[in-house]
Amino acid sequence: MNIIDVIDKKRNKETLTREELEFAFNGYLNKEVQDYQMSSLLMAITINGMTDQEVFDLVDIYIKSGEVLDLSSIPGVKVDKHSTGGVGDKTTLVVVPIVASLGLIVPKMSGRGLGLTGGTIDKLESIPGFRVEATKEQILKELNDIGMIICSQTESLVPLDKIVYSLRDVSGTVESIPLIAASVMSKKIASGADKILIDIKCGNGALMKDEKSARELRDLLIRIGNNYNKEVRCLISDMNTPLGVCVGNALEVAEAAELLDGKVKNNLYDLCVDIASNMVSMGKDISIIDAREQVLDAINSKKALEKFNQFVEYQGGSLEDMRISDNKLEVKSPKSGVITGINALKVSVVSNALGSGKAYIDDNIDYSVGVFLNKQIGERVKEGDTLCTIYYNKEENDYGILDAYTIEEK
Amino acid sequence: MNIIDVIDKKRNKETLTREELEFAFNGYLNKEVQDYQMSSLLMAITINGMTDQEVFDLVDIYIKSGEVLDLSSIPGVKVDKHSTGGVGDKTTLVVVPIVASLGLIVPKMSGRGLGLTGGTIDKLESIPGFRVEATKEQILKELNDIGMIICSQTESLVPLDKIVYSLRDVSGTVESIPLIAASVMSKKIASGADKILIDIKCGNGALMKDEKSARELRDLLIRIGNNYNKEVRCLISDMNTPLGVCVGNALEVAEAAELLDGKVKNNLYDLCVDIASNMVSMGKDISIIDAREQVLDAINSKKALEKFNQFVEYQGGSLEDMRISDNKLEVKSPKSGVITGINALKVSVVSNALGSGKAYIDDNIDYSVGVFLNKQIGERVKEGDTLCTIYYNKEENDYGILDAYTIEEK
Repeated sequence: MNIIDVIDKKRNKETLTREELEFAFNGYLNKEVQDYQMSSLLMAITINGMTDQEVFDLVDIYIKSGEVLDLSSIPGVKVDKHSTGGVGDKTTLVVVPIVASLGLIVPKMSGRGLGLTGGTIDKLESIPGFRVEATKEQILKELNDIGMIICSQTESLVPLDKIVYSLRDVSGTVESIPLIAASVMSKKIASGADKILIDIKCGNGALMKDEKSARELRDLLIRIGNNYNKEVRCLISDMNTPLGVCVGNALEVAEAAELLDGKVKNNLYDLCVDIASNMVSMGKDISIIDAREQVLDAINSKKALEKFNQFVEYQGGSLEDMRISDNKLEVKSPKSGVITGINALKVSVVSNALGSGKAYIDDNIDYSVGVFLNKQIGERVKEGDTLCTIYYNKEENDYGILDAYTIEEK
Repeated sequence: MNIIDVIDKKRNKETLTREELEFAFNGYLNKEVQDYQMSSLLMAITINGMTDQEVFDLVDIYIKSGEVLDLSSIPGVKVDKHSTGGVGDKTTLVVVPIVASLGLIVPKMSGRGLGLTGGTIDKLESIPGFRVEATKEQILKELNDIGMIICSQTESLVPLDKIVYSLRDVSGTVESIPLIAASVMSKKIASGADKILIDIKCGNGALMKDEKSARELRDLLIRIGNNYNKEVRCLISDMNTPLGVCVGNALEVAEAAELLDGKVKNNLYDLCVDIASNMVSMGKDISIIDAREQVLDAINSKKALEKFNQFVEYQGGSLEDMRISDNKLEVKSPKSGVITGINALKVSVVSNALGSGKAYIDDNIDYSVGVFLNKQIGERVKEGDTLCTIYYNKEENDYGILDAYTIEEK
């Protein structure tokens, strides 16, 4: 077999066999296939697509490239969630403690941010002392002890996805539904969950820019789940506006804790309740209405907040020592009217410019900076009102954040 | 500007601006754009195509990446030819001396073979002493002295094409009509010709597998020529069957000399006369019928053969010392019937297995091996007749060459 023949086939819109996919992807893992050959194949896949059988085969090849976490020694139903990534998306920090506080097991492996979307692991690292790495033994122990973990994906889990994802990120082949689906599902299946909730972000701040592709991804994720006898549910949620009121690492952790304390009721709250309710409904095999009641009770009774604190402490973190920058810049509204839009993408660009994200893999993150949205979509503001507060360290600069706002005067 | 944005645009079937093409391709030349990014962009171009304006821009960027040969100091019309490459294609060795012997100037830069198609430069190197490299000054001097040259493309001519071509060869992006057209035309224009004949090979032994793509390439080559005020004519010629009776480097040089000596009248002869007549017709601005008469006269009078010998001597070669292997294996017909097919691709695979081509850029070529076709398409053979003769060095092996033959009994 020859890699050029495999690339040629996909370029000509033909279907690749299991053997051809193995030859190409395992060859890439073994460094027999070169970066420029894999990126060329990935582009052909991105443009010409994949059949379901090709995607199933690829998921399987991904999973078999590493170890699979065996959670059978832990009693209880394992429920997992994944979000396709968005601006200000701290749902994991909220949802996992809620679901775990209701007796389900949540083994959540998360990623770091790259490009404009933040990563849960980066957010957790803004808590001093917090350990994001865990061995297989530590994962099993923490799940046994407190029913949840949020940690960095171990090196041995789906190593093929890691190298392919890095290449996609720099070769213009991120926006491929089959490749996204294979990446997401291989990791979820390898990390041992029985039931999986996928939150598909849709909008200008997300990978999926429109409803049509979001629905296409949803259907494919569910078909892959069926192929592995895993129950998969998907939510399609809006990512035109940032989730919640904070963008930036420590700011987002603080917001998650406040939400669990019952102090926040906004678009983030609604989404977290939706996600948690679906996970509980699947995990306990109950109706979504009953599940929702349990979720609200977990928040209101502070059971979920207790689980959150227990989890942070278990992984060595100290929330009291977490720092948000003292340097604040209040950005005022240039006119009076109603806020009809806050562009998620633009807010994330500002947050990254402040230092909260990475443009390159070896950039340093400033955990203490970010943006607090004082005013929300739909709110009426007067000229001179504070629209948002920028927490900065490097220099006092609003990075043109007013461009993110649409304020209509009538 | 960002290379990922440029790749994304082409992936989404949008048109790239001149600036974007410059950013990507000049960036690749300057090593600011990586191999894996260029191969991904090339794949997007291969699948999604290019507008005429994009191709014109790319040709221009290619040409401006290096020097342009200025032939204005040499009197006379400069005519050039190019073949898109095939099996047993020694037309350059035949046609250039014919046209030069009729008073036209032919500055022919050639390439080496890679993969299954041979290269004129490799063929010439089978002549002991022959110099394939030439400086700009040497090119001008030889054109002044004898009206022709066949040499290796100088390093300074279209360096961008050289690196892009090498990448295409290993990333499954060779078969793109816009990229083939830009590669061919940029080199022809940069090497200073006024009128250009392109021989487009079509068939299983060629890049263009079918007539439709061959015609598409032809039309694009002519439009690029028009854009530079260069007269371009194209022939589409069959490459399902090897050209002539010899495949292999020294064997092909010998065959070219025999043809110019008037001893060969076959498909190679017909094609060489066609190509030369079109070049003479363009160069002298005369009808194809008149041009053909001059071409036949150049062969019959041995003027063309004299030019060939003069050229080989000028570049230091000694035809008498050229060696064809003494080890011969005669391959017999397994049955009686009429030969209805000799598969060019399969013959080239055998010739390469013998050592006449390169699988990798640093392989060594054995100039003295190859295949001689004793029987031609349309000939009646008896069981046990010699179909072809294999000239080998490494080991006596027919490499399954009988698979190349279709012999029908009735």
